[in-house]
Amino acid sequence: MSGTKAPEKKLLKALAGERTDGIPVWFMRQAGRYLPEYRKVRAEAGSFLDLCYSPALAEEVTLQPIRRFGFDAAILFSDILVVPDALGQKVAFKEGEGPVLEAITNEAGLAALGPVSGIRQKLAPVYETVSRLSASLPREVTLIGFAGAPWTVATYMVGGRGSADQGAAKAWAYRDPAGFQKLIDLLVEATIEHLSAQVEAGAEALQIFDTWAGSLPPLSFERFALKPAQAIRREMKARFPHVPMLGFPRGAGGSAARYFCETGMDGLSLDTGVSPLWARDELQVHGCVQGNLDPLLLVAGGDEMRAQATHILETLGAGPFIFNLGHGIVPQTPPDHVGELVSLVKDWRA
Amino acid sequence: MSGTKAPEKKLLKALAGERTDGIPVWFMRQAGRYLPEYRKVRAEAGSFLDLCYSPALAEEVTLQPIRRFGFDAAILFSDILVVPDALGQKVAFKEGEGPVLEAITNEAGLAALGPVSGIRQKLAPVYETVSRLSASLPREVTLIGFAGAPWTVATYMVGGRGSADQGAAKAWAYRDPAGFQKLIDLLVEATIEHLSAQVEAGAEALQIFDTWAGSLPPLSFERFALKPAQAIRREMKARFPHVPMLGFPRGAGGSAARYFCETGMDGLSLDTGVSPLWARDELQVHGCVQGNLDPLLLVAGGDEMRAQATHILETLGAGPFIFNLGHGIVPQTPPDHVGELVSLVKDWRA
Repeated sequence: MSGTKAPEKKLLKALAGERTDGIPVWFMRQAGRYLPEYRKVRAEAGSFLDLCYSPALAEEVTLQPIRRFGFDAAILFSDILVVPDALGQKVAFKEGEGPVLEAITNEAGLAALGPVSGIRQKLAPVYETVSRLSASLPREVTLIGFAGAPWTVATYMVGGRGSADQGAAKAWAYRDPAGFQKLIDLLVEATIEHLSAQVEAGAEALQIFDTWAGSLPPLSFERFALKPAQAIRREMKARFPHVPMLGFPRGAGGSAARYFCETGMDGLSLDTGVSPLWARDELQVHGCVQGNLDPLLLVAGGDEMRAQATHILETLGAGPFIFNLGHGIVPQTPPDHVGELVSLVKDWRA
Repeated sequence: MSGTKAPEKKLLKALAGERTDGIPVWFMRQAGRYLPEYRKVRAEAGSFLDLCYSPALAEEVTLQPIRRFGFDAAILFSDILVVPDALGQKVAFKEGEGPVLEAITNEAGLAALGPVSGIRQKLAPVYETVSRLSASLPREVTLIGFAGAPWTVATYMVGGRGSADQGAAKAWAYRDPAGFQKLIDLLVEATIEHLSAQVEAGAEALQIFDTWAGSLPPLSFERFALKPAQAIRREMKARFPHVPMLGFPRGAGGSAARYFCETGMDGLSLDTGVSPLWARDELQVHGCVQGNLDPLLLVAGGDEMRAQATHILETLGAGPFIFNLGHGIVPQTPPDHVGELVSLVKDWRA
């Protein structure tokens, strides 16, 4: 008999493939600008990255939505671009413009990046935030650590900013697949280091966000999205066998099932466009799924929000399932709608 | 015995579900800014809409890529926004900005739109272009007419311009689904009128473009993308039983198979992210598929373009299949790459 205990927290139970009494719920970007208490801290913090690197403030904004709504999980307040920042690429967040980086567009640019081993020192404040949260969170709440997936982080590193078509990263990847692979490999290693440090500081579950996976054609998806996620999952599983991981290959469409099976993720986060019926038949059979209400339904609220949330619950609620959005909460979301939706999920029973 | 003859043109054969000797090929937005001969005509035409409404010039730019590359199909040079323009909504194309419309955001705004019966007169120059092309195209080339799908056209009519999240149209659709449905119903009727006039002028096949289908959550996808496409296909089939139709629900992911089966489309156009292997097993079994090379691979050219095009051909080439891109050609595409890719497809044999 093994000494392993079954998880007691609701979200960890779902990720272990178990049915739960009530559906666990949290929302991507649940700590953020839609909350007045967040805007207050943000205004005092200086820059956005200053907030990410201030353990007391980052802890506070991570806790705010837990206090207000009673979510089953808290996700570390941080950003996917702390990894390139820690590797020595200059990253800034400009008001109303989003992130701006000094673009790296070829193999020569890679040489300027610092070693992966420097991440722990540079991101020590982030891990201190995790450690504080591990102590301060209510005992029934799961602490989720995260990182951007290599492809998505690379689109910012190569493009220097967000873009509609990820054109700069694709230009490099298509012109020089072997050179671009070195950037991806570096990011696989860096992601493992960053996630490992979060687990050591107290993260109980992990999610990797591949926001731009859906723009990759299939052979590139395989090379730059699926294989890196597989490598990260394999190594994290070897290091921390009991820490479950969610993948979020946004827009992967029909390739989501292969991604789920071949990466060995414990859970798959579904984007807004995924049909719950299809997900039940093609994805939930392989493990826990998470999702996927349109964040704009949360803005609209009302009958339509309730009807579409109920459709998701009725289709996927037999579990294993975690209720979430299909993408992050947007700033214009009325907090009251969040409260109403969380209640709807918590009150729902199969 | 029926008097119906089997189609002789390669593209029509593929849409009829037959194998073809060589894979038919055309590219979305094959007439456009990447061609110097297009830019010359465009500069002389006045505004973009002036070009769409000048039969001699629109005919000329439609023919340019046929002359240069020998595509198996010509798609009418026009725009999806001629329909709202014909309904009386003010539409302008501003340089470097894209389309700008006077936004209609509620049911009261619908009242200002003219009747569907006015479309034929207002768009008479477009149908004259079709008629000219019907006479001037080489006999082996199929003439494709098209329209935007109701949801995608609605996103522009309601938002007043393109947007990353289709937020304005969703705001109306979620707040007032019944009112928004009236806009969709109007567009179903208008699309049928517009496509019918194109067929009567000589269009031999049709495609409807639902560029933003993938952003809809499943219940809304059903109401605003699938059902309208079904209604359009049903009526067009009743009116013109021998004119095949392609659907392009971009980003529909796992819902693509349902869309294909339930709309009764003859062909399904695949976006860049769709895996050919998945498409072969889940979609091609229901009919002809079309796609889906990343337009940015066509920009990059070289080994990677050839390898990914060959992967698509080897996976889907047993047919029924039409080679195309996963989205439209972009302006920075080198024409030489287009020529090389067309040759690669034409030379390929299963």
